[in-house]
Amino acid sequence: MLELGFRVDRSAGEPAYRQLAIYLRELIDAQRLPPGTKLPATRELACALGLARVTIVAAYEALAREGRITSQVGRGSFVSAALRTGPAVKPVASGRAFVWPSLFALRSRLLAIPAGIVPRAPGREPRYDFLGGQVDGASLPLAELRRALALAVRRHGRELAKHPDAFGWRPLRREIARLLVARGIECEPEEIAVVSGAQQAIDLLARVLVDPGDTVVIEQPGYFGAALAFCAAQANLVGVGVDEQGLRTSELERVLRARRVKLVYTTPAAQNPTGVVMSDSRRAELLALADEHQLPILEDDYAGELRYRGHAVGALKALDRAGQVIYAGTFAKLLFPSLRIGFVVAPRPLLRTLVLAHWNADGGPALLPQLALTTMLRSGELERHLRRVRKLYSARLIAMLEALRTSMPAGTRWTEPAAGHTVWVTLPDGVDGALVYQDAMADGVLYARGDAFTIDGQGVSQLDLSFARLPEATIVEGIERLAAIVRRHARGTGLRRGARATRDGAKRGGALDVANR
Amino acid sequence: MLELGFRVDRSAGEPAYRQLAIYLRELIDAQRLPPGTKLPATRELACALGLARVTIVAAYEALAREGRITSQVGRGSFVSAALRTGPAVKPVASGRAFVWPSLFALRSRLLAIPAGIVPRAPGREPRYDFLGGQVDGASLPLAELRRALALAVRRHGRELAKHPDAFGWRPLRREIARLLVARGIECEPEEIAVVSGAQQAIDLLARVLVDPGDTVVIEQPGYFGAALAFCAAQANLVGVGVDEQGLRTSELERVLRARRVKLVYTTPAAQNPTGVVMSDSRRAELLALADEHQLPILEDDYAGELRYRGHAVGALKALDRAGQVIYAGTFAKLLFPSLRIGFVVAPRPLLRTLVLAHWNADGGPALLPQLALTTMLRSGELERHLRRVRKLYSARLIAMLEALRTSMPAGTRWTEPAAGHTVWVTLPDGVDGALVYQDAMADGVLYARGDAFTIDGQGVSQLDLSFARLPEATIVEGIERLAAIVRRHARGTGLRRGARATRDGAKRGGALDVANR
Repeated sequence: MLELGFRVDRSAGEPAYRQLAIYLRELIDAQRLPPGTKLPATRELACALGLARVTIVAAYEALAREGRITSQVGRGSFVSAALRTGPAVKPVASGRAFVWPSLFALRSRLLAIPAGIVPRAPGREPRYDFLGGQVDGASLPLAELRRALALAVRRHGRELAKHPDAFGWRPLRREIARLLVARGIECEPEEIAVVSGAQQAIDLLARVLVDPGDTVVIEQPGYFGAALAFCAAQANLVGVGVDEQGLRTSELERVLRARRVKLVYTTPAAQNPTGVVMSDSRRAELLALADEHQLPILEDDYAGELRYRGHAVGALKALDRAGQVIYAGTFAKLLFPSLRIGFVVAPRPLLRTLVLAHWNADGGPALLPQLALTTMLRSGELERHLRRVRKLYSARLIAMLEALRTSMPAGTRWTEPAAGHTVWVTLPDGVDGALVYQDAMADGVLYARGDAFTIDGQGVSQLDLSFARLPEATIVEGIERLAAIVRRHARGTGLRRGARATRDGAKRGGALDVANR
Repeated sequence: MLELGFRVDRSAGEPAYRQLAIYLRELIDAQRLPPGTKLPATRELACALGLARVTIVAAYEALAREGRITSQVGRGSFVSAALRTGPAVKPVASGRAFVWPSLFALRSRLLAIPAGIVPRAPGREPRYDFLGGQVDGASLPLAELRRALALAVRRHGRELAKHPDAFGWRPLRREIARLLVARGIECEPEEIAVVSGAQQAIDLLARVLVDPGDTVVIEQPGYFGAALAFCAAQANLVGVGVDEQGLRTSELERVLRARRVKLVYTTPAAQNPTGVVMSDSRRAELLALADEHQLPILEDDYAGELRYRGHAVGALKALDRAGQVIYAGTFAKLLFPSLRIGFVVAPRPLLRTLVLAHWNADGGPALLPQLALTTMLRSGELERHLRRVRKLYSARLIAMLEALRTSMPAGTRWTEPAAGHTVWVTLPDGVDGALVYQDAMADGVLYARGDAFTIDGQGVSQLDLSFARLPEATIVEGIERLAAIVRRHARGTGLRRGARATRDGAKRGGALDVANR
């Protein structure tokens, strides 16, 4: 297999096949792929790069048109023997820069970043930013943070000169243990390690548990950050569908009967992105399967505290008797994403190794934000803030659902989540989600497209809309603009069923139609 | 090869062979290693675990004495067929916990953490803490930090609600670019990515460039954090010696002629741990070799600003014309280790991939400390602080060298570094470094033992003593206590040459005698 440091830049205007063609052209011209080199089969490369096969075929065809490669039916594609367009590679001493991508590790091509996370050009802030993972700037307890920071430096300033505790500031771990009682979890500070958030929890756990080729089960659709981190660890990802009760345990069982699975990643409190709360029976089935197969479960409880209606549901970890659930919590979605404090609750032997991995990765958790957070937890500020944002986000959720109802064309469907911070929208059949995305961006409406949440590239016609960040009026405006675009693209598709919402729900119709009734 | 999640806990009192024996015994008794399993050859396991072969032999012998394994000359060691001491493994549903280590990834056994970094039991703070990487708590500009934090929250508080720029806060990158002029480096903010420190820079670069089995060259002795991070990336580590001019380029050249090397890691400003400043001719030779072999170099400039005498020496990166040097800088050693801000300067294609790896690992750099640091850089506080600590550390270095001179027994040797924050001490021949370390710990004197800085376990009789953290009087006291212990152990070795210092220097006598004249 070619070692390709290639990945598609989805934020670039260029289509994927052209990006790949340009990349390969550079390698060919620099003789990194010398004449006669056999290129990977299109199916093989499509799989390795996580792209559709048509993309690879289109790239190869473009290179063939340029005379750079020759395809022979039944044999494959080869770098053309006669080609010698550019000068030979000059030695670096001549002032020529390194061809960096040719030095990249195989696993670096598994790295990816969702559109919208990379910084946008200045002055291009979208007016209607429905991207998830951000919170409302106006609602932040900034004065309390300022006070907590000042206190932290005054009281514990000298601690900042030392190697901080690799497990995390112990007083903070005590506060976290106390908080977790509300999630039904009883644990000691010694069973908690502070990390920078759910993303780091997943990454560190991948380092500790996942060897290249190990199978990891993730939800589909599911949190892209988890898929990316496991993918970068060279795990073999297997998706299991989600319905209105959460992760489909019967599907998981079939996977478990067929192969050894190293880890299951799940978001029971509010499935990311559909918002579905995992039902009690599914929780019991999941734990029974984990028992039977000695299978560790990573519970990402990112939204455990963001519940808007219905009775409170504890964490899956609260039901864990055998120590098979690893619990990841975060303060990013509640207080300040930028404080970057999350934590892991895990059995001690695992936790110790995870902390070793943390130290190896970045030297361990930063102390200052931990000091400030400890103060804010002790003073009850988190609780007060939670009460405020639950009310705030709940009103925004209602506004978003109402705007969807009144403005979206027939055939549009969406979830009505009881928790979390996003609504999962499915466009009417026949509407091209890629075109809607493009037009929306041009019109100042930004959101995460559904294909970011799947490993097979499906979901282009689905939208993950965060209601947490924008004020109600802006949400309504943004949805109306978006609806106008969808209506434009729906014209002529002939589909005129009524727009429908799915309470709490998602249903897996086929392999690819994932999220709605 | 066995998948062993084993690593030696050097902070435990237990010798390594016993730790290994206990670990294997548990696997055998739990039938994770069923009867008849062939154990790895001692040489192979020694290599895989980074332990001396005698350690493996001793562990196997202990297990053989217990009847748990049987060794057959010429065939190897096997788990005994007759053994059935414990009950069979019970299913988890019975309430039995997971056997976590058996689930660990192969690479997790490559994780390690230096003694002293893991938190010590409360109340056991050593009186004389000579561990490196920490700075002086009393010298920290705490009032300035408090002001900077308050200003950051007041001015940019709402930014804390958003996804921060994955490359780092741009105004900070501008300030860093300005600072780097003093190191001879001209670069744009777009060529800088903020990370949490040198450790993360190394780890991310390993993710981007290193495939399992790739060769990475490190200095010997060298910074353990680099060795650990590359090791966790499953790199094949090759050590190259250090002498009074720094990295031995002739030795590197021999390595490069023999095999493909993916990366060279070096600390030219003040070799970690010897403090040697790389000479101009070695810098030129290193860059020429990198040119010839298209070899990326990672320059860790952790101590670039901590120079105490002689003319200022710029960064290696300043001489880089071809974009082959990746530069890692950090504020941890200067201001607050706990702010956890460092940065990488790299060519753009590489930098972009490194930022992707950063996002995958932990979501990118935290904003709040960056905001505060930006303020402190703009106000000139870093420069003022640097002037203060250079003076302070210089006086402490002199005090440490003087104390070594007056109290260490004949035969002790040490470096006289011109930069950095540690002195590298070699005990007199015949003195048992392990016993000295034990007695010193018991007497409240803590330091990093030399073997932490080597990949072959050598260096037990060498000491890495940081002079940056303690006041002069405490340094003198601590060195005198340490000297008394060394004298006690030197008695009877018959070696009575005078104690000697090596200015700026280290010399590689043989494969293992690394650091002193």
